[in-house]
Formats: sequence, C-alpha cells, structure tokens
Amino acid sequence: MTNVKLEESVWKSAYNCWLQYSDIKDHSRVQEYKKVCSNLVILDQSAIIDSAKEELEKGLFSMLGETPTISYEPQKKASIVLATYDQRTIKEYGVDYEDCNILNDDGYMIQSFDYQGDKAVLLLGKTDKGILYAAFHLLRLIQMSKDINNLTIFENPKNQIRMINHWDNMLGDIERGYSGNSIFYDQNEFTHDVDRIKDYARYLSSVGINSLSINNVNVHQVESKLITKELLPHVAEIADIFRSYGINTYLSVNYASPIEIGDLNTADPLDSEVQAWWSEKVAEIYEYIPDFGGFIVKADSEHRPGPFTYGRNHADGANLLGRALEPFGGIVFWRCFVYDCLQDWRDRKTDRAKAAYDHFKQLDGEFLDNVILQIKNGPMDFQVREPVSPLFGSLKQTNQVLEFQVAQEYTGQQKDLCFLVPQWKEVLDFDTYSEGKGSTVKSIVNGSKYPFQYSGITAVSNIGNDLNWTGNTLAQANFYGYGRLIWDTELSAEEISDEWVRLTFGHDEHVVEEVNQMLLNSWQIYENYTSPLGVGWMINPGHHYGPNIEGYEYSKWGTYHFSDCLGTGVNRTVKNGTGYSGQYYPENAEIYESLETCPDELLLFFHHVPYTHRLKSGETVIQHIYNTHFLGVEQVENMKARWEQLKDKIDTYRYENVLDRFTMQLENAIEWRDRINTYFYRHSGIPDEKKRTIY
Amino acid sequence: MTNVKLEESVWKSAYNCWLQYSDIKDHSRVQEYKKVCSNLVILDQSAIIDSAKEELEKGLFSMLGETPTISYEPQKKASIVLATYDQRTIKEYGVDYEDCNILNDDGYMIQSFDYQGDKAVLLLGKTDKGILYAAFHLLRLIQMSKDINNLTIFENPKNQIRMINHWDNMLGDIERGYSGNSIFYDQNEFTHDVDRIKDYARYLSSVGINSLSINNVNVHQVESKLITKELLPHVAEIADIFRSYGINTYLSVNYASPIEIGDLNTADPLDSEVQAWWSEKVAEIYEYIPDFGGFIVKADSEHRPGPFTYGRNHADGANLLGRALEPFGGIVFWRCFVYDCLQDWRDRKTDRAKAAYDHFKQLDGEFLDNVILQIKNGPMDFQVREPVSPLFGSLKQTNQVLEFQVAQEYTGQQKDLCFLVPQWKEVLDFDTYSEGKGSTVKSIVNGSKYPFQYSGITAVSNIGNDLNWTGNTLAQANFYGYGRLIWDTELSAEEISDEWVRLTFGHDEHVVEEVNQMLLNSWQIYENYTSPLGVGWMINPGHHYGPNIEGYEYSKWGTYHFSDCLGTGVNRTVKNGTGYSGQYYPENAEIYESLETCPDELLLFFHHVPYTHRLKSGETVIQHIYNTHFLGVEQVENMKARWEQLKDKIDTYRYENVLDRFTMQLENAIEWRDRINTYFYRHSGIPDEKKRTIY
Repeated sequence: MTNVKLEESVWKSAYNCWLQYSDIKDHSRVQEYKKVCSNLVILDQSAIIDSAKEELEKGLFSMLGETPTISYEPQKKASIVLATYDQRTIKEYGVDYEDCNILNDDGYMIQSFDYQGDKAVLLLGKTDKGILYAAFHLLRLIQMSKDINNLTIFENPKNQIRMINHWDNMLGDIERGYSGNSIFYDQNEFTHDVDRIKDYARYLSSVGINSLSINNVNVHQVESKLITKELLPHVAEIADIFRSYGINTYLSVNYASPIEIGDLNTADPLDSEVQAWWSEKVAEIYEYIPDFGGFIVKADSEHRPGPFTYGRNHADGANLLGRALEPFGGIVFWRCFVYDCLQDWRDRKTDRAKAAYDHFKQLDGEFLDNVILQIKNGPMDFQVREPVSPLFGSLKQTNQVLEFQVAQEYTGQQKDLCFLVPQWKEVLDFDTYSEGKGSTVKSIVNGSKYPFQYSGITAVSNIGNDLNWTGNTLAQANFYGYGRLIWDTELSAEEISDEWVRLTFGHDEHVVEEVNQMLLNSWQIYENYTSPLGVGWMINPGHHYGPNIEGYEYSKWGTYHFSDCLGTGVNRTVKNGTGYSGQYYPENAEIYESLETCPDELLLFFHHVPYTHRLKSGETVIQHIYNTHFLGVEQVENMKARWEQLKDKIDTYRYENVLDRFTMQLENAIEWRDRINTYFYRHSGIPDEKKRTIY
Repeated sequence: MTNVKLEESVWKSAYNCWLQYSDIKDHSRVQEYKKVCSNLVILDQSAIIDSAKEELEKGLFSMLGETPTISYEPQKKASIVLATYDQRTIKEYGVDYEDCNILNDDGYMIQSFDYQGDKAVLLLGKTDKGILYAAFHLLRLIQMSKDINNLTIFENPKNQIRMINHWDNMLGDIERGYSGNSIFYDQNEFTHDVDRIKDYARYLSSVGINSLSINNVNVHQVESKLITKELLPHVAEIADIFRSYGINTYLSVNYASPIEIGDLNTADPLDSEVQAWWSEKVAEIYEYIPDFGGFIVKADSEHRPGPFTYGRNHADGANLLGRALEPFGGIVFWRCFVYDCLQDWRDRKTDRAKAAYDHFKQLDGEFLDNVILQIKNGPMDFQVREPVSPLFGSLKQTNQVLEFQVAQEYTGQQKDLCFLVPQWKEVLDFDTYSEGKGSTVKSIVNGSKYPFQYSGITAVSNIGNDLNWTGNTLAQANFYGYGRLIWDTELSAEEISDEWVRLTFGHDEHVVEEVNQMLLNSWQIYENYTSPLGVGWMINPGHHYGPNIEGYEYSKWGTYHFSDCLGTGVNRTVKNGTGYSGQYYPENAEIYESLETCPDELLLFFHHVPYTHRLKSGETVIQHIYNTHFLGVEQVENMKARWEQLKDKIDTYRYENVLDRFTMQLENAIEWRDRINTYFYRHSGIPDEKKRTIY
C-alpha cells in the first residue's frame, strides 16, 4: 500500500484523507446513531451497491464500534435502507413516487422516517450509483456529527460529466505530478496495486466523480500501446475496480495510432483505411471493457500529432474517433489547448491567448454528438490568475467540458498552500453574457444554457503514490473540493473548506477555524507573492516552480510581459493591441478593453501600463507590486506560525508534513518577493515608498 | 573506426584532420623529396621510434607514392636518419656534440647534410620523443611544400607539461562535448577502439602533446572505479597506445575514493588509514601502468567532495595524494576552480571572481613538490572575454599549470566558429608584473620566471567520436592550434592558422586566405554578437549555448551583471566594489580600478557604468552594444557567404559540414543580437542612433 514502512497508526490519518471514520467519543451521540445504523436493509443488488454496503460497514464499524446486520428484504425495524428508484420499494417505505421524479441518473434522496417508533433512513438512488453517493453522504453527515433523524435530502449532481484526468506515464512518473509516482504504473508495467486503486476509487466516488482517464494526454511510445491486446487486459482490471464505484474509465490516445501501433502510413481522418482501423480498434477495446468511456485526445498541440498534418481540421480529427466510438456509446474528449508553441518572441501580433477561440469558434456545430470539446478555464494555461476562456458562451452547438487543474502546476506544486476552490468558483460564476445577463460559465458547462448532449467538468489529478496521496496533506482539500464543487456548484468555498477540515482533522474548533482561514486565504496569498496583476508566466520555465521573471520573456511559448524601463503588461485591446479582448461578448469586451474598467487583478493581462499607473485601489502599479510582495511573505510567515500553534492538536505525521511544506513555501515566497521586487525596481528605478529592503 | 558507413574517400578528408598527407602533384617537387626520403636509417630502438618510423612510412608513401627502405645501421646514402642524442652517432653524421646541449628531454634537432653528394636529413632527439616530434616536423614541412635540403632546426618545447584533459564519462557522454560521444567509453564499458585511439595519439603527438587525462574531472560513481583492479587493465590498454606516442596517461579521481571504493568511512587527508589506503592504491595502479602519470582532482568544487569536509585545506588534500604518488614519480593536478556555487544573488559582497585567489594564494609554498595547481586562464569560467586570473604571478613557490578550454563550451560549442588561439595568446602575453615588467603569464607557466619543478599548460579537449573529431571541421584548428601554441608560445596566431589551413585544405591561395581570415576574425566576431564588454554570463544556463540575458542573474552561481534602467556591469573596484581589482599587482590593479584606464573590452567586468558612459572608442556603452551586435551578425553573414564561394574548392563532406555550422551560427547570432539589443533597449529606453530594428 505504501513503500514506507510505518506503523499503521502513523500513516492512517494521512492516507485516509477525508474518510477518517474516526471513532466518535460522545457516547450519547453514538447511541443515537446506533439506533438508526445497526441494520442495513439492501433491496437491490449490484457491484456498486456492494461498494455502498462495504463502505457503510467499514465506516459505521469504525465510527460506532459495531458492524450492522444485513438483510435483503424489507425489515420493520431501525435500519439504513438501500434501494434504487423502484415504485414497489418506495411505496413500502411510505415515500411518494412523484417526489422522486426529479432525480436524475446520478441523483439520490435521503429520507428519514419513523417505522413504528424505530428510526430509519432511506438511501434511494435513481440508479445504484445514487445509492453509493447517498451512502457516502450519510457517512459524511455522521462524520460531521450531524443529526440524521430528520433528513429530507434530494441531491442531483449539477454536472453530468464529473471527471478526473491523470497525466500518468507508464514509466511511473506523472507529468506535473507533485505527490510521488503513479498508482497505476511503474517501470512501464502495471502496478496491479488493487488495494490502493480501490481506495482511490472510494475517494473519487465519495465526492461524486464518475469519469476517469488513466494516462497522460501526451501519449508517448509505450502508452500508445494501451489500446492493444497486450495491455488492454490490464486496463480492464483497473476499469473493473472503478466500475464498482460508478466510475467510467477512459484512455488518452495517440492521434497517430494507426501509424504508431497499426501498420498504416497515414493517420488522415478522411482516409477510409484509417477510419476502418479505428473502428476495428474500438471494437477490440470494447471486447475487454464493455462500458469503456472513450478517448481523451491532445492533437496538434505542443508537438503532438493531429489532423493538421493532413490538411484536415479539428472537427475532421475528432469526428473520426467519434464515429468509431458511436456504436458502443463511447465519447471523445478533444482538447482545445491548441496554439503555436514555436512562436517567435519578436512577433508581437500573434497572441497565444487568442488561439483556442480562433481555432475552435469557427467549427461550432461541426462536431459529432459524441464529441466533447475540452476547454481549459483560461486562455493561457492554469495560471494563478487569468481571465475566463472566451470559448465559453461562444460555442453554442458543441458539447463541451470545462477543464481545471487540481494539480498545482503553476500554483505552488503542493509545496505552497493554494486552495483552488475560490478560483474555480470565480470561473464558474463568470457571466459570459452569451445570452444576456446570467449566462454564467456554470450554466453553460452544466448543459442548462444550451442543450448539449454531453457536458460537465474535468480536471487534472493531483494525486500520486505518496502516503498522503497529495504531497502536502492540505492539498487533499483541492481533490475533495473539486469533486464537491462540481457536484454542486452552488456550494460556497467556505462550506466546502469547512466540510473538508472537519472530515479530515475532526471538530476541534481552533483547528477548524485556523485551517479554514489558511485554505480560504491561500490563493490570494499565493497570488500576492507571485506574478502581479494577472500578467502570469514569471515562473521558472520547464518545471514551473519558483520565480524567473524573464524566464519566458524571449521564449517560443507565446508568454511575454514586455516589461521595460517605463512599464509592463500585455496590450490585448482591440484598439491598439492584439485584439484578444474582442473575443468576449460586448459586456465583457468593453470592461476589459478600457483601462478605467478593467479589473485591477487582470490589468496587466489586458494592458501595458506605466509603472506609475494608478490602480482602483489608489496605489500605483509599482507600489502595488512592492506592497503585495512584502505582504505575501508576511502572510506566509503568519500561516506557518499559526500552524505551529496547532502542534498538539494534530497527529505528528500530518503536522510535520504540513510544517515542512510551509517551510518550503516561506522560502519560495521570499525568493519570489525579492526577485520580483528587485526586477521591477531595477527596471523602473522607482523606490519603495515604505523604504523596505529591495536588493 | 566510425559508426557512419561512408566511402573512405568521403570521410578520409574529414577524419584525417591536418595529417592529410595528400599526394603531391608537382612532379619535380616529388623528385626533390624522394632524393632525401627514399631511405630511413634508424639508429636507435623504442616503441616511440617505431611510431616515428610508421608515421614516416605512412606519410611519405601517401605523399610521394613510395615507401622508404629501412636500415638500422648508418648508411652512406640519401636518407632520413633517426637518432637519439648519442655522441657516437652524432659524430658519425658530422654534427657537433656541443650544439646539442641546448636540447631538453622533448627537444630535437633537424639537420640537413650532404653525404658525398647525396642529400640527407638527420632527425635527432635528446630522447626518442624528440625523434617522433622531429618526424612530424619533417612531414609537416613536406606537406607545406617546404625545401628540406637546407635545414638547421633546433626545437625545444617552451612548456614542460603539454596536456589535454578529457571530460569523458564512461556512459559515453562527454561533459561539455560537442563532437559526439567518447572515443574511450560507451555504455559504461571501454570501447577498445584501438585504431581510433591510436589515430588520436598520432594527432596529439603531431602537435607535441605529452600528457593526457582520460576521464571527467567530475568523477561519478562508475568512473570512481577506474582505479580498481576491475578497470585498471583497460586503462593500461589505453596507456599502452599513448605511451608509444610519448604521451603519459592520467586519471581524474574522486577525492572520496577511500569511502566510495574503499571500505573506510572517512577521506580525511590527515587520517593515517586514509593515507595508507592511497599509498596502497597508487602502488596497485603502478603495477598495471608503470609510467602512470598521476591524478587530476576537482575537490571541494561544485559539490565534489574534498578536504573541507574534514576541516582540512587544499594543501592537506593535495599533499595526501602527492605523498602517495611520490615514490613512483607520479604527480597531482589539483584544480583551483573553487568557489561558492550556492551563492545568494542578494549577497553583493561575495565575488566569485575572487574565490580562486582567496583560496590558494595563502597556501603558496605549502604544497609538495609533485603537486601542481591547475589554474583556469580567467577568474570565472572560460568566458569569451575575461581578465587573466590574478593567481598567475601570485603563486611563486607552487608548481602550476594554466588551464585553457579547447572545447567551445561558452564560445559557440563547435557550431559557431571561434578560433581561440588569439584569445590564448592574449592570456600568455599578459604581463602580471609579479617581478616587474616582463613577468608574463607564459614566462611563469613555462617555469622560467620561478623555479617550478613542474609547470606547463593543460586544456579541456574538444574531440569526440564524430567522423571529423570536432563537430565543426574548422574546430580542428583549435585542437591543432592549442598544441602548436603551447609547444612554442612565440608562434603568432597567423602562423598557426596558416599552417593548419594549408595542412588541412591544401595550398589553394584563395582557400588559404579566406579560411585564415575566417579563423583569425572569428573570436572577435563571436564576442561582437554575444556578451558585451567583458560582462559575460548572458548565456543559457545549463547547456551554455545561445542568449539568456537574465538567465544567470538571480542564480546561485555568482554570475551577475546587475543591469538596471540606468546602467550595467559589475563593480569590482577596491574603492567601492568587491575589491577584486586589488588581487592584481599594482600596475594592473590601477589600470582596472580606474574607469579612465580600464580597457573597453573589460569595462563591464570591472565597473558598473551608465548606458551613456563613453568608451575610449567614443561610442556610448549602449550604442556600442547596438553597433557590435548588428555588426556581429553582418560578419557572420559575410563569413557564410565567403564560405559558399569556396564550394568548388573543398570536398563536399567538409564543405557541407562547415556550411551547416555557419547556418546554425547565423541563426544563433541573430538570436543573440535581437535579445541583447531588445533587453538593453527595454532597460535603457535609449534608441539606436542608426534607427535599426530593435524588437
């Protein structure tokens, strides 16, 4: 289960994440729960329901010290009743059939009722997946010490597709992984670490994830063979585990597969042999995995092969795969992360931010029904701050998912604390104005604004085979928060944070309050000491940790800030810049276009301004840079000091783990502060008003 | 001999470097040479003399179409006579014994004489090595089409130690190698490529090299075992080859060997077990290689282990090894490339340039007689321009060698043309004033200024297993030029260049003139388009090719230029800078200290000046930067165009090889020009007076 040999008591708290199932010390509370939880009545059968049963048994025994009895027929006594949406069963438990019509396929109802004096609770799913989600919900309530005797809960996930993408390579390394190596692969073999993979499935399911891709979107030589007979049995073994937790398995595929693993000399999507090759290939995959999800494709992006080689467009490319998958109900996720990654820094006209819109907007409506475009939240690449991608709201006839990055590639790499739920919420709540006011991103990606066949949200995983899954234990909150948020985008960051802290660390109010504050402020703090005012890319090229102010300035990546002795920032206005702001609907375009209305935090993303330009805050740009960078370091020092005060309240392993990370974060923050301040002081020649040390 | 399967005629010209031995077309010239060269008379026997004989047979047959007869007794007829310094033999050939007293161990005499009407030439060495050098000299004269009937030549090498250091790793890669992989190792095994290694020995010997180390100074795990019984037989095989060409073999060793390959837990130089371990180890080495040269050691430098770990100094460390080698006549090269490679960029007091002097000056006189300090030419690290290391002249009681780098690490990596002989000559001719005027570096390192037991010059090799040995065929000139220059430091760069061009490409005057000009101007051209005015380090970190103006600015390497909106450069004055200039004798210290007298080309090495500072040339610093960078690119364009004009006069293989490199160089030069100009324009805000394009 882990390479490190530690006493179970030591690693358990770190390993178990938010499914601690700690024994409840409050005796009367235990008695109250036992009145309901002593028996499980299971009225339907499936592998997924078995998972729900197993989880309830595990959780209840751990928390209450007692394993429930099991029966498979209705019992007239205190019990947790598991049932799928089935008129007969419902009526027997006095639930109104009409009430349940509102459940969708992944939805569930939790209903307390009184059965002749005995308390009981019904976990009712439209399908077996709903039961499993309801079981996790009930366990969460008990972990949270909530009353379970008066529940009437209807839960439908807001998003249909709730997905995680792994960027794991078969060698075992993870592209942008900060938590050890892959749990799936090692040395180009499958790990067959069934216990660990099953635990991962439990975590995913506990927060409602229903789709998973298990290999890197950059599909290298070995991984290209995942869709061959040699490796499919191993993929099927993994898919079996996830299936029991209501999760469909997907693979990233190499667009050039017909050449790389077939014997064709082309991958042209309009070539009939290529089409036939993919059809046969897909049929083969479904022999091994009957409910195989489909493909993730990164094509014509960052040197990956794609349809451009053959003079075809992305619709041609994606539809080729869609057509092959269609008979089996499979789908294609086609990534929109397409731009010129060999840009000449001298070229001031090309703007990488414009690329995804320019490539895909014109293809709206040309994709097959089982093709989904996968759109990163911002136009660049998961920076600490960027505007929302203008593709949202522009594509009205194309299935789409929003792509977040739970892995903290540019946001501290799980050394620095950066709880990303507040960032994600800003994205989801962003109003695109595509259909006038109220056309939020969340209403588009959840399929309510436009009638997409498929829609939802996906994200890059942040887990690996580290004992605690996420490197920094506090980064578990991003995994948890991602799942919870995309299940219910109306949850506040505060609610999600509070849930996670209590589930993970228990209910000591001092711990709860402190850790909540740390999480909720951490994104702003990280932004404070890193790239200012939305400009981005002042990070070390390649590994993307720590400052390198000009590291990307003369590169081929299309990522510049154009700082000089007078000012800084990228002019993306329509008036005299790259014209990027014009990709938004007028309401947003006007805001971004104008120096007066552009939000401070995105100022340098949209405008090149003098260092003496005054922000809405009243500060000049240069003084803002100095102030936020001094502040950011102070905030990290403060977080670290406050964490140290929690020493006696948190187990040693997790305490030390997080303390180590805060120590690294402080070192990183100081380096950022000093380099950024020095860089801009050297450029501007303008001293800090407060005369603090700048080198 | 090479991995590439090519017709012999194709690769021969590239592979044979300056030992082309092309057949001489001029019939009367051939007849004239044949009158002397039809017979070899060999009056002494040794493996080295066999090599001389073999080389003469090979060269004469190839050039004259006739293999000379061989006799081992004096013959009264036209002949080339090979003899060591032996009174009996000399007298027989009418040479005055007294005349030969001036020869040193590696010296030789070439004397024409008339033996009863027949022309003959005596190749006389003080030892057999002298004969071999004389044979190469005679062959060079014939290749150069010189008259050989009236020769009276006395040659003594100016330097006692004439060495090449390989930075080859056993995996086969070469640290800072730009010509393919190692000729000695592949995949952690020895190549046993006897033919190729022997040819390499011929090239080395032909230019007078007498010492060679065959593994990287950064001695990693596998290479640490080169001094074990497992690998010594293979080292001995290589040493056997070089021995026949008068070359001693050395190994770089890991200072922590007693721990790494022994079973001690310390490498403390004052520990008696450590001392005993090294004594036994050295004795073992000499069992395999009776004339083993000794060790090269990079200790306490860039994370290599060393005596500092045990609170000992470099003298303690070096003497430990010296003591072990002494009974066998072996010597230790102890590198002075020692500095803090974890410097904080905020620390403006520490100056890497001062490190070598600060470490070693105080130890002058404390090293054993068979310990040699190895001092890089400059205080930093083989930049295109830096001042001469102030250690030269400061160490008066310590054996020393000067270290150059033939490999073009920071000078274009054998893509860009950079003939380094002019740079090396500037270093050698630099007057340290250590004993008043005339205390040149060359007079110090050749042992004439101070009575060192050992002295000379060493350099990092630029060869690999590329067909043409050096990547860029024109980079062969650096290998040739290095050897010739350190043999005779009075040779001019022009003489050396002209020799190399004629030996390598023949005597077409157009080719000779053009290639000579390219070589002789190339260093200045490379300097023009790269780091200006001696500031250095504006190169890509890590691989060291191409521009990255701030790449080292905030790094740990102690390599900064401190450019800001007002000016640039490093203040190393005593008055208000780091004090580095005070490490020189007053005559130089005063020149460098003063803005008025500091040479333009080193201005930014010693001073931080405003962009508007006027150089002695009359230009401002900023305009100089613009002008030299535009000029540099024009000069590369011009070189490339002129090379293209030589197409019909140079064999296809070498023509295309060099053309490819000029194409790469032009691309590189343009990138340097644009980045440097943009960077300084953005910083200074001062436009180019000539209004050329700056991005």
